[in-house]
Amino acid sequence: MLRKNRLFTPGPTPLLPAAQTAMASFTAHHRTADFRALFQRVLSDMKEFVGTQNDVLVLACSGTGVMEASVSNLTSPGDKVLVLTAGKFGERWTGLAKAFDCNVDVLSVPYGETFSLGDIRARLTPDVRAVFVQATESSTGARHDVQGIAKIVRAADDHTLLVVDAITGLGTTHLDADGWGVDLIIGGSQKALMMPPGLAYCAVSERAWTRMESTKSPRYYFDLRKERKSAAKGETAYTPATSLFAALDAALEFIRGMGNGNLALGRETLVNNAELCAEMTRAGAKALGLKLYASSPAAALTAICSPEGVDSGKIVKEFREVFDAVVANGQGEMKGNLFRIAHIGYYDYLDTIGILAALEHVLARTTARPVEYGAAVRAAQEVYARSLADKRQLVGALRTALEAVLGSS
Amino acid sequence: MLRKNRLFTPGPTPLLPAAQTAMASFTAHHRTADFRALFQRVLSDMKEFVGTQNDVLVLACSGTGVMEASVSNLTSPGDKVLVLTAGKFGERWTGLAKAFDCNVDVLSVPYGETFSLGDIRARLTPDVRAVFVQATESSTGARHDVQGIAKIVRAADDHTLLVVDAITGLGTTHLDADGWGVDLIIGGSQKALMMPPGLAYCAVSERAWTRMESTKSPRYYFDLRKERKSAAKGETAYTPATSLFAALDAALEFIRGMGNGNLALGRETLVNNAELCAEMTRAGAKALGLKLYASSPAAALTAICSPEGVDSGKIVKEFREVFDAVVANGQGEMKGNLFRIAHIGYYDYLDTIGILAALEHVLARTTARPVEYGAAVRAAQEVYARSLADKRQLVGALRTALEAVLGSS
Repeated sequence: MLRKNRLFTPGPTPLLPAAQTAMASFTAHHRTADFRALFQRVLSDMKEFVGTQNDVLVLACSGTGVMEASVSNLTSPGDKVLVLTAGKFGERWTGLAKAFDCNVDVLSVPYGETFSLGDIRARLTPDVRAVFVQATESSTGARHDVQGIAKIVRAADDHTLLVVDAITGLGTTHLDADGWGVDLIIGGSQKALMMPPGLAYCAVSERAWTRMESTKSPRYYFDLRKERKSAAKGETAYTPATSLFAALDAALEFIRGMGNGNLALGRETLVNNAELCAEMTRAGAKALGLKLYASSPAAALTAICSPEGVDSGKIVKEFREVFDAVVANGQGEMKGNLFRIAHIGYYDYLDTIGILAALEHVLARTTARPVEYGAAVRAAQEVYARSLADKRQLVGALRTALEAVLGSS
Repeated sequence: MLRKNRLFTPGPTPLLPAAQTAMASFTAHHRTADFRALFQRVLSDMKEFVGTQNDVLVLACSGTGVMEASVSNLTSPGDKVLVLTAGKFGERWTGLAKAFDCNVDVLSVPYGETFSLGDIRARLTPDVRAVFVQATESSTGARHDVQGIAKIVRAADDHTLLVVDAITGLGTTHLDADGWGVDLIIGGSQKALMMPPGLAYCAVSERAWTRMESTKSPRYYFDLRKERKSAAKGETAYTPATSLFAALDAALEFIRGMGNGNLALGRETLVNNAELCAEMTRAGAKALGLKLYASSPAAALTAICSPEGVDSGKIVKEFREVFDAVVANGQGEMKGNLFRIAHIGYYDYLDTIGILAALEHVLARTTARPVEYGAAVRAAQEVYARSLADKRQLVGALRTALEAVLGSS
């Protein structure tokens, strides 16, 4: 059979065709009225996409660049910071904070796990200047309780900033950065925004802007204050990745369409889409007797433990060779033990059913165990049917309520 | 008449159509054999494009990001460095070196000028750890004598590193980084490489790699040693801007074609092309009685002084409104005094003749002086004809020499 190359990796993710064509055909110079208009529209739309009243900045770099920006802009050498780590991306916070000479307190839990809020509270001494965490840890598929963490941080000390890497979290998780009091939340273009890598963004609270007035770590390319000042004039501080901005504009338009013209609603629809893809995938994996790697799985991706005695690299290879589907192996010490299927951004029902059916064949080819064909797909179908029924029930309940109100008027 | 939008700005520059389509259609994940093959081909081709045996690294950022990398990787706080500045981009070196707490000695000359080698020699005390300069100062259109500067730096002290921002210099200027002893040379994607902004690159000497073992400035996203280690395995340290890598691959293929299959020769052809476009433009401007802004003009761009009493913003605006041609105004304090026409990358004879003809009309519309239509074009035509004659003469001389050798054998 014909095989279409498809990414099921937690970034880059499948590209929106409209973003691809926008990117290819955009040629404007960045210091022109044309680009300025696009740039200002994108920054304003990004606030809706993130769900924040705070300024959003979009930089030419990968997500790690904006992670660095949050450390170099919000801390001074010697500052005590608390890093919450449960995987490879948590460890990146530690590396970054150490590179900028912070005094780093690391609260780590085993891969696949998430934090106890009590443990975090115990570490939050008043001298902690900032807390760094992921919304979803893409290396393990775990979801961290950002709302719970934010509650503790905000209760502890108004001078403790909370920085959340939501690179795979934004657009896959319901996040209320402003409501919960997150000071800096980070995203990347190659995730829920359905476009190629090369842009990363963040929303920054007033508390964080104030902090930047006094911090002393060196920064230049990632100087957020300079970037904010330029943005107020409709420009970037340095040459922006213009073609990627055009792609972002197209992607935001598509997401707005998912919300029938309302971008915030479109984002919620996108999150619900990821939630449903993930629930279908979890049900399918379990129906095949597979174990999930994360105790608290995120909707961004599903990390599935390799069956006893099977190197997950073999599974990844079979997916690629037989179906040209790219799923991700474990990273670092997790390599060989798990494989990861993403639900971030541009995925639909057919993708989800297809990859689960493919998983059945891949398991049959890589394990000695008999595989009941259709088991994963059936489990996913049931999840899908139930979600439709839930939706119908909800619509029914709303109609009844509405009729009651109309009838009584 | 129909008006096609055309960039004559010194970056972004006109896009190569093959780069646009490559960018739009590339979808591979970055941790796959497909991307690895493309990445390794690009890095190897980039060595030929730069003309170096040293490792070339390509990062997801604008050129300023790699300028920062050269400062943060090659210096420690307190290090004495010498910045040679003659414009806005020279001033960026000062800002960067100060941001990273260097002890900055600034040798500056007025905008439009270039440095006296004697002045540089006088500043090169043995405690200078690094010298920072531009190959071409894009804000003024000046060319700096990199070869001469390198000779002085190499003679002065083997511990003094020479860093050259050749963002608009590479592909427009004959540069021999290895032969001259340049330690770090920097380029950007949106210049001679005919593709959108979002990638920047550098070639790094062994002397510079050794320096990085002992320097203490904080760096993480721009840690060149980490990037080099990843590149040796066919990967980037962080998620690369994959679509832009695909565009870069297509652009390098095009430049190779310009050299009949030889990329180094293609680069030289590209440089000669810029030289000829620039020479035609200078001749055209002079024929209209206009003054060049730079005493030592680069081939990357031609900065032309606005006629007495005319704000160059008006000239830029007329170019845009009447011909949809985007030329650049002066930057900062130079705004209003000059306009800049670029020759970097994807420009040809028709573009050059066209913009000079347009300049005649723009002058007629913005100044009170009578304009002799055809004067700029005729001067450019003469330059072009002479270059063809020179080429014919060279081919003739080579043929005569060859025949003599063959006849005598």
